[in-house]
Amino acid sequence: MSMLILMPCRDTFSFELELKSLKPDLEIQVWPNIKNYESVQFAVCWNHPNEELSKYPNLKVVSSYGAGVDQIINDKGLDKDVKICRVLDPTLSLEMSEFIASLVLQKHRSLIEYLRFQQENKWIQVHKKLTKETVVGFLGLGQLGIHAATYIEKLGFKVKGWSKSKKSLGKIETFSEDQLEEFLSNLDYLVCLLPLTKETKGFLNKSLFNKIKNNFFLINVARGEHIVEQDLLDSISNGQIIGAALDVFEDEPLRKKHPFWQHPKIQITPHIASLSNSKVVAQQVIDNYERSKLNKKLSNEVSRAKGY
Amino acid sequence: MSMLILMPCRDTFSFELELKSLKPDLEIQVWPNIKNYESVQFAVCWNHPNEELSKYPNLKVVSSYGAGVDQIINDKGLDKDVKICRVLDPTLSLEMSEFIASLVLQKHRSLIEYLRFQQENKWIQVHKKLTKETVVGFLGLGQLGIHAATYIEKLGFKVKGWSKSKKSLGKIETFSEDQLEEFLSNLDYLVCLLPLTKETKGFLNKSLFNKIKNNFFLINVARGEHIVEQDLLDSISNGQIIGAALDVFEDEPLRKKHPFWQHPKIQITPHIASLSNSKVVAQQVIDNYERSKLNKKLSNEVSRAKGY
Repeated sequence: MSMLILMPCRDTFSFELELKSLKPDLEIQVWPNIKNYESVQFAVCWNHPNEELSKYPNLKVVSSYGAGVDQIINDKGLDKDVKICRVLDPTLSLEMSEFIASLVLQKHRSLIEYLRFQQENKWIQVHKKLTKETVVGFLGLGQLGIHAATYIEKLGFKVKGWSKSKKSLGKIETFSEDQLEEFLSNLDYLVCLLPLTKETKGFLNKSLFNKIKNNFFLINVARGEHIVEQDLLDSISNGQIIGAALDVFEDEPLRKKHPFWQHPKIQITPHIASLSNSKVVAQQVIDNYERSKLNKKLSNEVSRAKGY
Repeated sequence: MSMLILMPCRDTFSFELELKSLKPDLEIQVWPNIKNYESVQFAVCWNHPNEELSKYPNLKVVSSYGAGVDQIINDKGLDKDVKICRVLDPTLSLEMSEFIASLVLQKHRSLIEYLRFQQENKWIQVHKKLTKETVVGFLGLGQLGIHAATYIEKLGFKVKGWSKSKKSLGKIETFSEDQLEEFLSNLDYLVCLLPLTKETKGFLNKSLFNKIKNNFFLINVARGEHIVEQDLLDSISNGQIIGAALDVFEDEPLRKKHPFWQHPKIQITPHIASLSNSKVVAQQVIDNYERSKLNKKLSNEVSRAKGY
């Protein structure tokens, strides 16, 4: 029995070290250097090539290296009996919340506007909205969404959250599936932290943007497929969206000639909102590896039907 | 008896409205349209012209519009019997803490590096230090310093603070006057929130920078006079200081030809870290105005000897 690490374009060395330090006798095969397809029963994937997983006849469990599992669920080559799990770690939530806060504060305090004024030697004070009157809305209140909404609320912002099933979250005003229009009615920031499912693909489109009555700033840290790209460009052109910070894209790395790169109102980061800590991932992966060997219930197992 | 508003280059209209709404019969004179110098007993100043205050023979109290009072204390035309007070408000502390956080997070999450990569259509992930291993040091633990240090600590950073008299602040590691070297020994961020006094003028100089053993990022949100400008430029050149965010300058607005404007490692903002809220200032000013009429002790009175 061996473990497969299947993470193209990513240095897996520190992850291997962490796994080995926890379980010195673990047999690890790192893609693409596979010597024995039959021995693989447990795979850890991130951005894996579609249908690659069909080559491992004895695969029992696929774990995502992070919170996202859409690529694994959507892999048509993956047998339906293979269990899927993911890694949810508090460091990841903190990384994500901190990153969202860095973008919200950067915009709230006009840091990019000041950089532009500086380029022209201009001393201009920009009007600032009071923090307690600034509304940040979160689409998606899973583990990451709850953490981020709470984090931003503690900074003094007015926070709203929308999720399929309504959550109760202290000072955060929450909305359920059928209250989407109410949730969207007035927002200064819209943050997308939805899981990627059939229903949420293309969720950020013209029709949704039009439900927001004031101008707002969009932050997408979930998946590129949540956004209808042309609708985003149109809504920025007509001034409804004052700017967007995007960390995720349909194709990653974002292709060299994509119109987002040089758009003056789009800020691009290379999927770095929440990079998993290899030590934390290794601990959870080894735990599920042991569970699968003993046929015990996995931690953070994912439902194919729900998509998360 | 009248109140003088002496704030060049600043729109005072909303402040006047707030004062009038609290005390409709208040007689206000707004510099430079002074009709009766003798009647002024109370002045509210911000960046006032030096020695202007000597023209008001019956002046009893000068209140700063914000927390800074150095310009008032250093005004040679101000009679020693005139009392000085300042405005300390919680909104101001929050504004300041939030601004420092926006700068720390912007650097911590490499947002400006990513902007530069974006200009070149480059998809590059930058290494990020763990937040809990990143040290932010505060010089000055007055009301603003304590608030900011606590705020940054809550974000998960390791926080250290230095002040003349040692403070006790929970998880924040504090240092007293004679422990400066220990405080400086290892820092990723150095934030200056010192009051400006004879002892602290030029405090941020080569000798201080040399006591910090690792490379660090400098944030000055106190006064321009705290920094020896050439020493800052030299320490950036030799790589010891990896960058600086400056909100305050010896001469404001920063003069058009100053070398800071186009320096690739210096980020300039036009003294906007903490802009007083006119409503809050008006309440405190009216309170001290009433106190002075009744010869009662002023709130937030400033000691000329201490400088704060």
